Amino acid sequence: MAWDTEGTRRRLRDAALVEFATHGFDGTTVGAIAARAGVNKERLYSYFGDKRALWDLVLSTELERLATAVELTGAGLDDVGEFAGATYDYHSTHPELSRLLQWEGLQPGPPAQAVTRTEHYREKVARFAAAQRDGVIDGGLDPAHLVFALIALAAWWQTVPQLAEMITGAGLEDQDERAQRRRFVVEAARRLASPPPNVSPGSSSTG
Amino acid sequence: MAWDTEGTRRRLRDAALVEFATHGFDGTTVGAIAARAGVNKERLYSYFGDKRALWDLVLSTELERLATAVELTGAGLDDVGEFAGATYDYHSTHPELSRLLQWEGLQPGPPAQAVTRTEHYREKVARFAAAQRDGVIDGGLDPAHLVFALIALAAWWQTVPQLAEMITGAGLEDQDERAQRRRFVVEAARRLASPPPNVSPGSSSTG
Repeated sequence: MAWDTEGTRRRLRDAALVEFATHGFDGTTVGAIAARAGVNKERLYSYFGDKRALWDLVLSTELERLATAVELTGAGLDDVGEFAGATYDYHSTHPELSRLLQWEGLQPGPPAQAVTRTEHYREKVARFAAAQRDGVIDGGLDPAHLVFALIALAAWWQTVPQLAEMITGAGLEDQDERAQRRRFVVEAARRLASPPPNVSPGSSSTG
Repeated sequence: MAWDTEGTRRRLRDAALVEFATHGFDGTTVGAIAARAGVNKERLYSYFGDKRALWDLVLSTELERLATAVELTGAGLDDVGEFAGATYDYHSTHPELSRLLQWEGLQPGPPAQAVTRTEHYREKVARFAAAQRDGVIDGGLDPAHLVFALIALAAWWQTVPQLAEMITGAGLEDQDERAQRRRFVVEAARRLASPPPNVSPGSSSTG
């Protein structure tokens, strides 16, 4: 019955992703997830523990998928631009991930899987810092702030889609606008990693 | 009894801001707002109409406050940087505004007060476009995308505070980190409005 167990687990995780992305942690009940999966509620508890454990699993799974899909392949300007563009692509085709992060932002308390995620981000920041030390990209901005800003540029469109539509005059269903947004994100990322001609390098650097 | 009416209205609006920011539109009941204000539910209906009308009023009031507090005083690089910095300051001292925008982003459907807000953003985009035409700031990036990105840089810290803490290693209560984040936002905004030396201007311009 190994196949059956795996299938049931997957159905429960898929159902949990839909329910959590739609209603958030507080707005989701274990009963709603079980009902969507067509599985007994007790089975859910025995497989995954409680609602919090399932939330942590769902969010970290989605973040792992993002990390696998979007790699920082090098450390030059083109790589930084492409990293931001690929992150933008991922967020615009996976709105459920943005929603999970937004729900997390609205909740008080520590994030899911803080240790693993912190390690992942530190590793990314370290690669940007190394690229700055090597002079491959400009070193004028704090590398942690830079990584955070690249995610902002990539994910903000999906986070506040109505605001994006009011400002740009076009919505997410507009393919041409989506492509233009991507080009903007890539170019903006390159600019953040380059010294502007009339600003002295290092003016915003931090310890 | 004019004073009393105004006082009651204000109490209801203050209570609505707290409830909506905490629980979102769907998670808030008219009864909870009335109870927090210590006012009869029927009075709320007679003053403001329904829950949707009150939500629209609360959100547009908070956005007007932001617009009044943060002005784009000029069109040069320093003004663009300071505009982003002031927007960052406003968001970090008014977390309830970020939360309202996040709740709106999580809801399907059109935004509150779309016509007024669209007009406001168009006017801002037009000022950036004029500054680009006049050569005061670089014209390589679409002005609407630029305005949207400046808001992202300013508001993202407040939108996903746990992510910010995992990446930077410091939280919102760290005054030194808050100041460093502000300097980053100002410098990042300046970079977006300047042509990087090794990227040909116009490579991301849009129609």
